[in-house]
Parts: sequence; structure tokens; C-alpha cells
Amino acid sequence: MVKKVAVVMGSDSDLDTMRPCISRLKAFGIPAEVRIISAHRTPAAAEQLAAHAAENGFGVIIAAAGKAAHLAGVLAAYTTLPVIGVPIKTSMMGGLDSLLSMVQMPKGIPVACVAVDGADNAAILAAQMLALSDEALSAKLAQFKADMAAEVAKKDEKIRMEEF
Amino acid sequence: MVKKVAVVMGSDSDLDTMRPCISRLKAFGIPAEVRIISAHRTPAAAEQLAAHAAENGFGVIIAAAGKAAHLAGVLAAYTTLPVIGVPIKTSMMGGLDSLLSMVQMPKGIPVACVAVDGADNAAILAAQMLALSDEALSAKLAQFKADMAAEVAKKDEKIRMEEF
Amino acid sequence: MVKKVAVVMGSDSDLDTMRPCISRLKAFGIPAEVRIISAHRTPAAAEQLAAHAAENGFGVIIAAAGKAAHLAGVLAAYTTLPVIGVPIKTSMMGGLDSLLSMVQMPKGIPVACVAVDGADNAAILAAQMLALSDEALSAKLAQFKADMAAEVAKKDEKIRMEEF
Amino acid sequence: MVKKVAVVMGSDSDLDTMRPCISRLKAFGIPAEVRIISAHRTPAAAEQLAAHAAENGFGVIIAAAGKAAHLAGVLAAYTTLPVIGVPIKTSMMGGLDSLLSMVQMPKGIPVACVAVDGADNAAILAAQMLALSDEALSAKLAQFKADMAAEVAKKDEKIRMEEF
Amino acid sequence: MVKKVAVVMGSDSDLDTMRPCISRLKAFGIPAEVRIISAHRTPAAAEQLAAHAAENGFGVIIAAAGKAAHLAGVLAAYTTLPVIGVPIKTSMMGGLDSLLSMVQMPKGIPVACVAVDGADNAAILAAQMLALSDEALSAKLAQFKADMAAEVAKKDEKIRMEEF
Amino acid sequence: MVKKVAVVMGSDSDLDTMRPCISRLKAFGIPAEVRIISAHRTPAAAEQLAAHAAENGFGVIIAAAGKAAHLAGVLAAYTTLPVIGVPIKTSMMGGLDSLLSMVQMPKGIPVACVAVDGADNAAILAAQMLALSDEALSAKLAQFKADMAAEVAKKDEKIRMEEF
Amino acid sequence: MVKKVAVVMGSDSDLDTMRPCISRLKAFGIPAEVRIISAHRTPAAAEQLAAHAAENGFGVIIAAAGKAAHLAGVLAAYTTLPVIGVPIKTSMMGGLDSLLSMVQMPKGIPVACVAVDGADNAAILAAQMLALSDEALSAKLAQFKADMAAEVAKKDEKIRMEEF
Amino acid sequence: MVKKVAVVMGSDSDLDTMRPCISRLKAFGIPAEVRIISAHRTPAAAEQLAAHAAENGFGVIIAAAGKAAHLAGVLAAYTTLPVIGVPIKTSMMGGLDSLLSMVQMPKGIPVACVAVDGADNAAILAAQMLALSDEALSAKLAQFKADMAAEVAKKDEKIRMEEF
Repeated sequence: MVKKVAVVMGSDSDLDTMRPCISRLKAFGIPAEVRIISAHRTPAAAEQLAAHAAENGFGVIIAAAGKAAHLAGVLAAYTTLPVIGVPIKTSMMGGLDSLLSMVQMPKGIPVACVAVDGADNAAILAAQMLALSDEALSAKLAQFKADMAAEVAKKDEKIRMEEF
Repeated sequence: MVKKVAVVMGSDSDLDTMRPCISRLKAFGIPAEVRIISAHRTPAAAEQLAAHAAENGFGVIIAAAGKAAHLAGVLAAYTTLPVIGVPIKTSMMGGLDSLLSMVQMPKGIPVACVAVDGADNAAILAAQMLALSDEALSAKLAQFKADMAAEVAKKDEKIRMEEF
Repeated sequence: MVKKVAVVMGSDSDLDTMRPCISRLKAFGIPAEVRIISAHRTPAAAEQLAAHAAENGFGVIIAAAGKAAHLAGVLAAYTTLPVIGVPIKTSMMGGLDSLLSMVQMPKGIPVACVAVDGADNAAILAAQMLALSDEALSAKLAQFKADMAAEVAKKDEKIRMEEF
Repeated sequence: MVKKVAVVMGSDSDLDTMRPCISRLKAFGIPAEVRIISAHRTPAAAEQLAAHAAENGFGVIIAAAGKAAHLAGVLAAYTTLPVIGVPIKTSMMGGLDSLLSMVQMPKGIPVACVAVDGADNAAILAAQMLALSDEALSAKLAQFKADMAAEVAKKDEKIRMEEF
Repeated sequence: MVKKVAVVMGSDSDLDTMRPCISRLKAFGIPAEVRIISAHRTPAAAEQLAAHAAENGFGVIIAAAGKAAHLAGVLAAYTTLPVIGVPIKTSMMGGLDSLLSMVQMPKGIPVACVAVDGADNAAILAAQMLALSDEALSAKLAQFKADMAAEVAKKDEKIRMEEF
Repeated sequence: MVKKVAVVMGSDSDLDTMRPCISRLKAFGIPAEVRIISAHRTPAAAEQLAAHAAENGFGVIIAAAGKAAHLAGVLAAYTTLPVIGVPIKTSMMGGLDSLLSMVQMPKGIPVACVAVDGADNAAILAAQMLALSDEALSAKLAQFKADMAAEVAKKDEKIRMEEF
Repeated sequence: MVKKVAVVMGSDSDLDTMRPCISRLKAFGIPAEVRIISAHRTPAAAEQLAAHAAENGFGVIIAAAGKAAHLAGVLAAYTTLPVIGVPIKTSMMGGLDSLLSMVQMPKGIPVACVAVDGADNAAILAAQMLALSDEALSAKLAQFKADMAAEVAKKDEKIRMEEF
Repeated sequence: MVKKVAVVMGSDSDLDTMRPCISRLKAFGIPAEVRIISAHRTPAAAEQLAAHAAENGFGVIIAAAGKAAHLAGVLAAYTTLPVIGVPIKTSMMGGLDSLLSMVQMPKGIPVACVAVDGADNAAILAAQMLALSDEALSAKLAQFKADMAAEVAKKDEKIRMEEF
């Protein structure tokens, strides 16, 4: 049976940034559950989700948060499933606070960090992980990669025709 | 009865940096309990400490951690006692990662952040908080401030005598 | 008798950022006095406020300032009351100048720094300090924390129902 | 059959930093191949490795590089396997150049970035990915997590006995 | 015969930033080919362009990219022609991620980096390189420099007349 | 006779930022000459101005520039008059590039750097320098300082009346 | 009569960094008084010095401090004499905290900031200010500049002879 | 006839960092002249060198400087030859001040910036420019690139044999 992906946000204000993540998972046919859980305001929910994620059929957890972005680390503390972190852009140097809070995890508890606001890539990375034991998904990823290449190639072709 | 201060470190490698904090509390006559608790490796201990801190006689929690320094925030999630954060110096820009991970807390869950490696000041700040309802401690703080001023004044006097 | 909180701003242009601080104190029933005092333009007023804060019934001082944000430190120089610093966002890396100017205080004179533009958290932190000797306030803080959790839980419930 | 992990370094000067990664994989019983491939000096080798990684039995690629650290991104360009990036510490702000070069990947080609010099965590993250379809490995990860917790708890116990 | 300049962009969203580069080359009479090639999405096209650039009549390659801006480095890996990098502005500290990803190249494979969004200067720098063996172009550069000086001098003259 | 101040800008796009500088000098009765001189496009004009500034009756040079802001340093190379630098805000971290380019001068050739976009303060600083031998100007500065204090005090008084 | 320069340090640990400043003033024949005054620990001494500096025969104040380096700003608050700030190097990004705390002064109260650890340049800048009304000092500065040039020229001559 | 490369340093303390540049040029058979010229202390020498570089047989200028590193820009102001900048590492964030001072050049006057302390790459880049009209040099560059690849490949082969 296909494993699910949990898409957890620290705040509903992160939803618009995370929509491409949800859509991409859907496009790959990966079942997703979207949650709003705050590492600081609802820590029990965070623990609950992470501690039981595996038994509840999740394969990967994606966590998006900004500023002192502890969410991904807090979830990772309670599970051995891979946790992907999406640092949300802030006004403090464009999200450097979120990025450092997510990526600089201490030894023993990794978070797989993607780019600031990298919602789409978080979904693709989750798919890559799940595809390790799912050949159909692996084929979809290969197709997705080929489509991207084709799209860039088309733009390249078009610009080469352009008169500057 | 005097409230205690919990001095929590994310790792025993932070102990040397935090010794001035422990000594300062002692010098003020404030009972302290020193703990090693990792937000990511022993999250249950963190929850346990913070959730029951008030009923166990603690007034203030001091939390020291480095890199993606979630400890202070994680403790603050489980208590309404004031939590003081000490960002530990790292090689990533001299502790900017620790600082931003501690100070940039989201709305609702504050951490009182002091300077990078500011162990001594964390103790003084804790004393200032406890002194709000403890006149003897308040007097000690006033004396401490006067002593500091006198020490600087003495150095000033000495340098004014010096021949350059 | 309940202690007051002084909410000091370096400039009236900081007022809008600080309104959530004033409202939050009011919501907690904590008496506040709002002041505009510049560490550099009206240093005598800063000294006056801080040096007599305790005897004038203040328990905590909140100081908000931007750029070379000396206000909190200058006030802390004249009192042993806890001083909370709110670094105001600037165009220099989103307030990194304000943050570093506030948080990196030298040994002996702490400032309790909250997040850039963290006005609301400054009020909550002040309440946490005052609640150390005020059980009614302590209960209000517990209620506030529970309400926040409930609000996030409600949003979580709602998003779980949503069709993506 | 168990999938292998490729541990690729941009330079043999990165080997000492990466040894904990290799040991950790070994400790988990995950077969690893260690390679020195430069994104800029031996780009053909990078393409060769990545393009044929899946068919050659690899499940995950770990790439470590410093400064303008393109290695992880270049490998990710040629495969749909998950690629984990380890930014190597440099003298430019403690590795901020390596970190930003690795983590800020454009839409479509994710890299799973861990902390600066986070060699050990890269191995654990790789194990977490492979454990999605390997229950024995999953059990090892749970044991590893429990051991870490026990170790911290032991240190905590010891420090609580200490006289300060 | 005059050598051509390849103006390569990682994405068509960079075109507006790069137009001044294309116009400047045209103004100098330097033939340019504009391409959209992604280091990560169409790596084969990048290799193809760079590996055959010299034999196809190119003298200089200009590469513009943002975030983890690997394009210039990836092209430089496949050619000994000079490669000029234009880091594109991003929200991450105004393009510091792009800049560091481009300029911090390892020993052996240089990239000639210009300012963030420095499209115009990239064209001038390319012209300076080609002018080393093209006296007519060299004269055009001298004229361009003189014109710039005259333009500034005119503005200077005008402002000196102004009443403030 | 009163010494003049040269207000030099690297580009006419800096004029709006520098108007408060020109007005402030005027308000102090200090004669100013406004110039547009580029360290890189009209270096001869820069040399000309600086090398003859003293003999032409100038006492202080104010130089405003952005990005790789060499103007102040280049002028300081040709004179022993004090040179005040105004780093102009840019999109690269809010002017950190301009600031570091101006303030980090090597041993022997100082630049007196003020805040990013600190046009007004540059004028006040120039006045402070000239007032060292001009008692009337010194009195104006004292009055200016008193007026500022009064203005802040008035705002303080007003906000203390306000109902929150 | 020649005006004096006050060389004020926040801590005696800054003395070694500031020795070149004291020596340079001495070499120019400028009388200097060296002081240790802390903006936070002995604020009254800071006020005392600055408020009476002019009447006590000082022409310029040089202030050196590190971290949240408020000293220069605090002194500038009490005088209209020019105040030169020397940000002391720290482990937080090489002194960026000190630099921003000193240079980013608000409108109305300038500080003339020199480079991090720029003790020598602070003395030269002070001399330049005093030389505005002191022709002998002005001549010394011109000679100093000529000597520096000669020294560099000599090194240049020597290296041109070298065999590489 | 082969064009020369000028290797200019702002200070003789930069010589050790720049030796690999001088050796690399020598290895390529490119005649080099090594100079010590300070943009601020010997500006006339800088002008002299740059303004007459072309007529004196130079093809490329390499300029190395640290902190407020104006040297490359100042040289570029006086010539239309390509100027390569080498930002020298400093204690201010590992050379970020030098880098930004060099790379962020205004429109019209480019500097070709390489990595912090990138002396070797500066020489290779100079060779790439000169090779545009020198087939023998072009062949040497190709050979150099092949040798580098072979060296990495050898290390790769060796590590693959190693037992971990």
C-alpha cells in the first residue's frame, strides 16, 4: 500500500506558500494529509503526529515554518521517518532565520532541508524517497524530469528565434 | 520560599560556557538545578521539566543551546514561566544560527534571549525577575551593580595615571 | 499592589509596531505607561525613568528601538529591574542591526531580547515575569496559552476537512 | 536486495569531515561506495555516476562540497534518486557560501540539505529513506534513537549529582 | 573573424534583467546568441554548448542565474573559454545566495563574476576580453568610456548651477 | 572666513537621499557645493576636487555612494581634510555592500562613516568638525540639540496623555 | 591652545587594540587622555566626560567598544563635539555586531565610524578634524601622507626587482 | 607578441596569498609584472599603471586587496583592459567586505571578480582571456584542464580501493 505524506504547517498563513507542495503530491498520486500544528502552541499535537506517523501509514513528513522554525526539528525528535523542512521566507534577511533554524540540526536528528519557500521541491523530494520502493512512482518522476527538460528546451528554442 | 532556577543545556559540551551562569546564581543565593536535556534527543525530558517546573518550585528556566537551538522554545512551549535563552557560539558566523533560532520566536511564546555565550547575564536576568518579589535579592542586585561600577572606576583611575 | 510596565519607544514612528504590546498588557490587566524617550536625544529622560522606575512602581521596562538600538541597554544601565528589548525592523537586513545592538549586551547588564518587531511577545514576557508573584496573572497566562492552542487546533481541524 | 549509498566528495580534503558519515552507514549495515568526484574538474564522472546510479544499485547519493558547492545539484540534475547535500565549512562566514550554494536549489531539482559539516546526519537521513522499505533497518534506527536518548539521560543524571 | 558571445540564462524569467547585456553587445557590434539553459533541468544542453563553444565560434560565455546559481560553474567545467557570471537578485539577502554560488569557485575552474544583476557590465567585460585582439573594438570601448565620463561631467555641471 | 563643505555624489540618483544633508548645512549657514563625481567614471574630477579642496576653501568633504562605494576612499586618498562617507542603501542586504566598502578603510586613510542613508547626520558631523574653531556654529549645534530634545519631550508628553 | 582628544574604551581588554591610536596621537603631538568608561556599567562617568568635554579642553572624543557597542552613541548624546567610533572585533561575524551598533545612529546624533579595530585611523581622523584650525598639524598630516606613499613606493620598487 | 599581466597588490602582506597566481602565470609562460600599489596611499601610481597599461604591453590586470578593497575598481577606472579582482580574506566574515567592495561595481566599469583568496583562478582566468588570440596558450589551458581531471580521477580510483 502507498505511504502517505504529512504536510504540516506552523501557521495557516503558510498555506499559500505550501499549495504547490500539496498539488505536486497530488499530481504524483501520493496521498497527503495537510495539518496546521505549531511546535510551540500545540506541541502535543506535534508529538502525537510524529510519534504515530509510521503506524498511521505515513512515509514522509514535510514541515514548513518561519522565523525560529523549530517545527521540522520537533517532529524529527519523535520519529525515525525522514522529515523534510521548508523554511518560510521572512523579512529577516529573506528567511535566513528560518533556514538556519531548520538546517543546522544537531548530530543524531537530521532534517532534510530544501530552499526557502521551496514547497514544490519538498514534494518532489518526498516522492523521490517513496519511489525507492515504488517503481510506478519512480517512472512518474522520470517522466516529470523529462517534461521539465522539454519545457526548458522549448523556451530555449523560442528565444533562439527571437530578434534582439 | 525562594524559587529555583533550572539551568538546562542541550549538550554537556555547553557546560564550560555555562559555568559562569551557575556560579552567578550561587553568588546571589539562588538555588539552581543543572540539567542536560536535548530538545531533539530527549524531548520527553524537556516536556517533563517544563510542564511541571512551576509546581516543582522553579521560577525561571535558563536554556542554552547551539546551532538550530530549539531548546528554549521547546521548553517555553510547555510552561508559562519565563524562559531565558543563551545562544551558544558556533562556527557558523559566530553563533548567528543559534541566536536567530532562539530569538525569532513566533507570536505567543516568547523567549528572553541574551547575548551569544551570555551565560553570566542569563543568571543576572533570572535574578532580576526573581527580585521582583524578593527585596533581599533586589538589594544584592543593587550591590552587584555598584561593585561593577566601582571596578570599572578603579580601572579608569589606574589608566589615567598611566604614561603612554 | 500590581506593578506597572513601562513601554518606552525611541521614536513615535515605532508606535504602530508597539500597539500589540500595549493591548496585550491591557488584556492581562497590567497597568502600562507609554513613553517616547530617545537614548540619544533625551538621555536625561531615559536616566530619569530607569533610575526611579522601581520606586515609581514599575516592575518591568519594555524598550523598543531600531538601527543602533541603544535604548534598552541605556535603560538597563540605570536599573536592576528586568528590561525587555524589542528590536524594530529596519531595511538593513530586516533589522539585524537593531537585533545585534540590543541582544549583544556586555557582561553584567542583561537585556531580555525578543524577536524583531516582537511587540506582543514582549508583553507576554513581562506578564510572565510579573506572574512569578501574582497567581491571578499566572492563571491568565495559562488561559491565554490554552486559548492559543485551541485556536491552532481549530484551524488544524478545519484544514483537515478541506479538499485539496 | 539492500540498496547502496554513494558518498561523493568534491575533494579528498573533505574526507576527514565525511568519515563519520561512512562509519555511520557501516554501523547501520548499509553498503556504501566512497567517491571523489568534482562537479567542475570531473563533470563527466559526476554525470556517469548519477545517470546510472539507480541501475547500479544505489538508492541514495550523499554529496559533500564546499564554497560554490555545486556537486549535489549537479548530481541531482542526472538522477531521480534522492540526493543529500553536506555543505562543508569554509572560512566565508563558517560555510554560509557552501550552505546557500547547496540548499537554494531551483524548482524541480531538490537537494536534501543537512547542517554544515553534518556528515553523520547525512548518513542517518539516508538510512531513514532506505528504511521506508526495510523493516530491519527501521528497527535499527529506532534502536539508535533510543540509545542516543539513553546517553543524554545518563549525562543528565550524572550532572544532577554534581556539586556546583 | 569576430568571435561570438553566448548569453545564457537559467530561466526565461531572467530575460528582463539580461536585456541590457544583449543591447550592449549589439551596440559594440559583437554578435551574440541568447540561450535558455538550466544547469539542473537541461544539463546536457549546458555541456553541449560549453564543450563546443570554441569550435562554434564563441569567444566568451556569459551566464546568468539566481539562488543556487550553478550555471556559470557548470559551463566553465566544460570549456577553457572565459565564463562571465551574472548573479541574479533574489529575496535571500538581495542575491547573496546567487553571488556566493557563482563567485566562490574552487581552484582550477574560474568564473569571472560581476555585480548582482550586473548585466550591462557583463557585456562590457566580454567586450574588453575580445578587444585584446580587436583594435576596432578597443577603440569603441575607449569611446564608450569617454562618453560615460562626459555624461557624468554634464550632470555635474548642471548640478553645480542648481540652487539648493 | 567660513570653510565650505563639498557634498559629492557618485550618481544623480543619490540626490534625493542627499537633500536633507544639503538643507541641514544650509540651515547651519555652512556654504556647500554640490557635485556629481564618479570614482570610476570621472576619476580625474575626483582627484581634482580632493587634491585642491583645502586651497579652494573647503574644510570637509561629504561623499555619498552605493554598492562598491569607493568614492569616499578615493577622495580621501588625495586630501588630508576629513572625508565623511554616506553609504547609500542598496538591495544587497539593505546597503551592507555600500557600508563595508566605505567603512573598512585600510590603515592610514580614514573615512568617517555615518549610517546607511545617513545624509542628515553627515551634515551635522561636518558642522561639528567646523564648529571646533567656530563658536557661533558651536552655539547653533547646541541649539539644534536642545530643539531635538524638546521635540522628543513634546511627543513624550503627548503620548503620556493618550488613552490606550 | 591645542585641543585634547579623549580616548575612551568600554573595557581594559580593548587597550591593546587601541594602543596604535594613542601612539599616533602622540606622534602628531596631540594631547590625549585615556579613559575606561562603560556605557552600561559607569553611565554617569560617560555623561560626565561628554557633557563637560568641550569646557575641559577636548576637541574630539574617540570611543572604542565591542558587541552591543553603545559607548560612542551614549557619549555623542551628551556633547556636540565630534565623536569617532572604533568598533572592536568580536567573534560574531568578525565585529559586525560592534560595527552596526556604532554606525547605524539615528538622525540627529552622528558618530563618525571607522573600520573594525581601526584604532590608528581614528587618531588620524581626529587629527584631520583638529587640523582644520591648526596649520602645523595640517602640515604634519601632509608629511605623514607623503611618508606613507614613500613607504609603499619603496616596497613596490623592491618587489619589481624580485625574481619570481 | 605575448601580452603581459600586471599582478598588483594593495599591500606586501598580500604577497603570500598571491604567490600561486604568479607561479601559475609563469607555468603558462605568461610574462608577469608584480607591483605593490595602494589605491589610497599611492593613487598616482595606480593611475599611472592603469592609464598606460595597454601601451606598455599589458593585456590583463590582476588586482588583489582586502577590506574596503578599492584597488581593482580604481585601476578599472583608468583602463579598458579587463581587470580581475581577488578579494583578500579578512576577519570580517571571512572576506565578505573585500568581496562586496570588489564585485558590486557600478554600471560601466566592470571588475571580473574571482573567489576570496582565489589567486590561482585569477591567473587561469587571465590566461583564458589571453588565449582568445593565442592558440598555443589555449592548448596549454586544455592540457591543464585535462591534467586536473586526471589528478581527481586518480584520487577517486585510490579511494575506491580503500577499505572503510
